[in-house]
Amino acid sequence: MRLSRYFLPVLKENPSEAQIVSHRLMLRAGMIKQQSAGIYSWLPLGFKVLRKIENIVHQEQARAGHIPMQMPTLQSADLWRESGRYDGYGEEMLRMQDRHGRDMLFSPTAEELFTDVFRAHVNSYKDLPLTLYQIQWKFRDEIRPRFGVMRGREFYMKDGYTFDLTKEDALHAYNRHLVSYLRTYERMGLQAIPMRADSGPIGGDNTHEFLVLAETGESEVFYDREITDLKFGDRQIDYDNVEQCQAVLEEFTSRYARTDETHDEALFNEVPEERRRVARGIEVGQIFYFGTKYSEAMGATVQGPDGKPGEVHMGSHGIGVSRLLGAIIEASHDENGIIWPEGVTPFHVGIVNLKQGDDEADAACDALYQSFTAAGLEPLYDDRKERAGGKFATMDLIGLPWRITVGPRGLKNGVVELTCRRTGASEELPPEQAVQKIIEIYAPHRVHVF
Amino acid sequence: MRLSRYFLPVLKENPSEAQIVSHRLMLRAGMIKQQSAGIYSWLPLGFKVLRKIENIVHQEQARAGHIPMQMPTLQSADLWRESGRYDGYGEEMLRMQDRHGRDMLFSPTAEELFTDVFRAHVNSYKDLPLTLYQIQWKFRDEIRPRFGVMRGREFYMKDGYTFDLTKEDALHAYNRHLVSYLRTYERMGLQAIPMRADSGPIGGDNTHEFLVLAETGESEVFYDREITDLKFGDRQIDYDNVEQCQAVLEEFTSRYARTDETHDEALFNEVPEERRRVARGIEVGQIFYFGTKYSEAMGATVQGPDGKPGEVHMGSHGIGVSRLLGAIIEASHDENGIIWPEGVTPFHVGIVNLKQGDDEADAACDALYQSFTAAGLEPLYDDRKERAGGKFATMDLIGLPWRITVGPRGLKNGVVELTCRRTGASEELPPEQAVQKIIEIYAPHRVHVF
Repeated sequence: MRLSRYFLPVLKENPSEAQIVSHRLMLRAGMIKQQSAGIYSWLPLGFKVLRKIENIVHQEQARAGHIPMQMPTLQSADLWRESGRYDGYGEEMLRMQDRHGRDMLFSPTAEELFTDVFRAHVNSYKDLPLTLYQIQWKFRDEIRPRFGVMRGREFYMKDGYTFDLTKEDALHAYNRHLVSYLRTYERMGLQAIPMRADSGPIGGDNTHEFLVLAETGESEVFYDREITDLKFGDRQIDYDNVEQCQAVLEEFTSRYARTDETHDEALFNEVPEERRRVARGIEVGQIFYFGTKYSEAMGATVQGPDGKPGEVHMGSHGIGVSRLLGAIIEASHDENGIIWPEGVTPFHVGIVNLKQGDDEADAACDALYQSFTAAGLEPLYDDRKERAGGKFATMDLIGLPWRITVGPRGLKNGVVELTCRRTGASEELPPEQAVQKIIEIYAPHRVHVF
Repeated sequence: MRLSRYFLPVLKENPSEAQIVSHRLMLRAGMIKQQSAGIYSWLPLGFKVLRKIENIVHQEQARAGHIPMQMPTLQSADLWRESGRYDGYGEEMLRMQDRHGRDMLFSPTAEELFTDVFRAHVNSYKDLPLTLYQIQWKFRDEIRPRFGVMRGREFYMKDGYTFDLTKEDALHAYNRHLVSYLRTYERMGLQAIPMRADSGPIGGDNTHEFLVLAETGESEVFYDREITDLKFGDRQIDYDNVEQCQAVLEEFTSRYARTDETHDEALFNEVPEERRRVARGIEVGQIFYFGTKYSEAMGATVQGPDGKPGEVHMGSHGIGVSRLLGAIIEASHDENGIIWPEGVTPFHVGIVNLKQGDDEADAACDALYQSFTAAGLEPLYDDRKERAGGKFATMDLIGLPWRITVGPRGLKNGVVELTCRRTGASEELPPEQAVQKIIEIYAPHRVHVF
C-alpha cells in the first residue's frame, strides 16, 4: 500500500476522551473512530489488525478440529425464554421489537442459539463429540462503556460451544480449548495466563480466564512468578489425545494464578514469598464447562448407545477478538506508539523515502515495494512529500515491526537502513539483503488459503 | 475435513417452506437454518461458501485500490436525522432505544456513517479520490421475507462509498466499480449483466444493477442476446486509467439491457427481433452515482486547490454477499443438487471410500487426503460406514465440483475414479495423476494471504 493512496487519519494531539494508552494510541493511529458511546467504526488500519487476529483464531480453531459457522446478530426472544435467561439478563441485553411487534434481541452471547441448532440436527451419540464456534459481533449495553474497544458495547468475539456425551469428554474438550488458546495467544505475541475464574450466575464448576499482564488491566491478579516462564512454543499436540491435553492443562494451571474474584489469601501465602506477584491483568478469553444447564432447559438430548435418550454436557469458550487489539497494545507499546508483534501487524514493513521526488530514491523504493509484494508481503510505502521526521513519527506511531529507510546518501553506497521498531536497532545493508531478511522473519507467519 | 468429524446435517426430505430451488437446496445441504422469519444461522457448509465469496470480494476490491474498513451494525439515529432519512426510511429500518433511552438503529445501509468518517478526517482535495468500503451485516425489516437468503432480513453486504472532487472523477470511480464487479462475479462462476436501473428515492443519475439470469429471478429483464457473449476474462485493466475503464463500461452497457423498472418498449424494439430476450434475473449488486446529496446534507467538504471549500461527489456501490449464495445456486444446479463453481466451492474435492474398513481402500483414501492437504487444498473425505449410493447422493447434493471414488476393485488395477459434478463424466486414473489434475484445476484460484 502506498500511503498517498491509503486512508490513515493519524492524530497529532492526544485525544482527551482516552484514559488508557491503547485507546489513545488506537485513536491517534487512525484505527478507530467512536460513533456512539462504546460503538466504534473500524478505520482501515484497525480493521486490518482485526482481520489478522480473526484469521489466527480461525486457523487455530481449525487445528483443534473445531467447526466454524455463524449465527445471526439478532435473535428472537423466544429461545431466551426457553433457557430462562430472557428476564434475568438485565439491562445489558439490547431488546427491540420488529415491525410485527415480535420481541427480538441483539445477541450478547449464543448458548441458546447453538443449543437450538444442536437439538434440531443432532440425534445420536455417534455424532459426538462436536465443537461448533463462530466469530461474530455481539452487543452488551454496558452502563458505562470505557477504555475504547476494551470495554465497548458492540464487540467482536469468538464463542465456541462443545457438546459431549459425558462430563469426562466435556472436560477433554475444555482442556483442548485451553491448549488451543495458549497457542492462539502466543501467535499474537501475547502471554495470556489461565487463571481460575468465578463461574458467576451462568453456573458451572470448571472455568479459567486468560489474562494478559498490563498495568492498565481492569482486574487485580495474584500469581506465582514461575508461571511467566512457561512457553507453549512449537510443541506438536495431538488434540484428540486426552493425556497430552491434560498434561498441558496441568503444566499451565498447577501454580497459583487467580483474579481478585477467586483470590484465596491463605493459598496464595503457600507460594514462596519471592515468587508471589500481585499485578493487573486484562481478560482476553474464558473457557467454561457448565454441564447440562442449557441442554436440559432446552431439551437437547441424543440417543445413547443403549437406545435411550442421553444427556449432553456442554461448555462455552470465548476469545475477545476486538478487545485483543487493546490488550496487545497495552502489552506492547512505548512512548512513540504501538509496537505490533509480527503475527498481527497490519503491514509487514514500512518503507520511508527520505527524498520523495528524487529519481534514484523513488526507483529504489519502488523496487523494494515490488520485491515485497512479489514475495506475498504487504509493505506500507510512505511516498508522501513530507519531512523525514514526520514520516518516522507516523511509522513509530502505527507500530510496524520493521522499517526500511531509503535515501540518496545510502543509495550512493548501495545500502538502505533496516530498523527494528522494538529495539530501535538499525543496520545498513544492500536492498536485496534487507528484503531477504524481512521475508525470513515472516516465514513462520505465512499461511496459504483459498 | 473428514465427514465423520464435520457437522453437515443434510436433509432427505424437501423442506416444505422453501418455494425456490436455492432455498430448498441450502436447507437440504445443511447450509442454513432459519431462526426467525428472514433470519438464518449459517451452518458450517454455508458459512464456508460465504467466506469464500467474501474473500473474492475483498481481493477484487483490493485490486481496484479500494480500502476496506468496518462500520458498527448499530448506529445512533442522530446521523440519520442529519441526512434527513430517519423519518423517511419507513418500517424497513429496525429501530430501538438503548438503556439510556437513546434512539438507535440497525444499519440497513451506511451512507451516513461513511460520510461522517469522511468529514471528520478528510480536509483537503489532495486526499481524493478515496474509496472506502466494508462487508458487514445489515438489517432490513422486510414485511414478507422469503426465498431464503435471497430476501432475508439480516443479510451480509459489501457496500463501498466513493468520494471525488468532481462529477467526472466520480464517474470514473463508478466505471472502476463496474469493471471490478464484472471481474468479481466472473471469479464466482457467474455472468452478471449490468442493466440500467431506477435511481428510486435515493436520487441520482447514474446507476446500474447487476443481474444474474435465472428462471426464479424476482425481476423481469429485457436484453439484447449479444450481451451474453461478452466475457471479461483475463484482461489486465489499469484501474486508474480513465479510458480503459470507460471502454469496458461502454462494451458492457451499450446494448439494451433493462429491468422492468426501467424498461422502454420502443427502445427495446430497435433491437433486431431475433436478438431480443425477455427473461428473469436476480439482482446481485448495484452501482450508484448520486452526486452531493449526502455530502451537502451532512456538511462534508474539502479544501480545494484554490483554498476554498469544495463540494464532494459521492457514489455508493453494493454487492449482496449472502444473497450471492442463492443466486449462484439458482444459476448452477441440477436435479441432484448444487453444482459449485470452482471459485467458491466449500471443499475442492470429495473423496468417497466405497468400502470403509477395508485396509487398502482406507489407506488409499488417507493418502489422497494427505496429498490434497499438503498441496493446500481442502478435501472432504466421506469416511462414514454408509452405502456407496448414500455417499454419492450427499456429494451430489452439496455440489463439490470434483469427486474421487476409491474402491478395492479399482485399486487392484492401480486406479481411482475421478468424476466431474457438472458433466457427470468419469475417468479412471492412478491416484497421483488424479491429485495432480485437481491441483492444476484449482491453480488459478489460489491466493496467498497472511
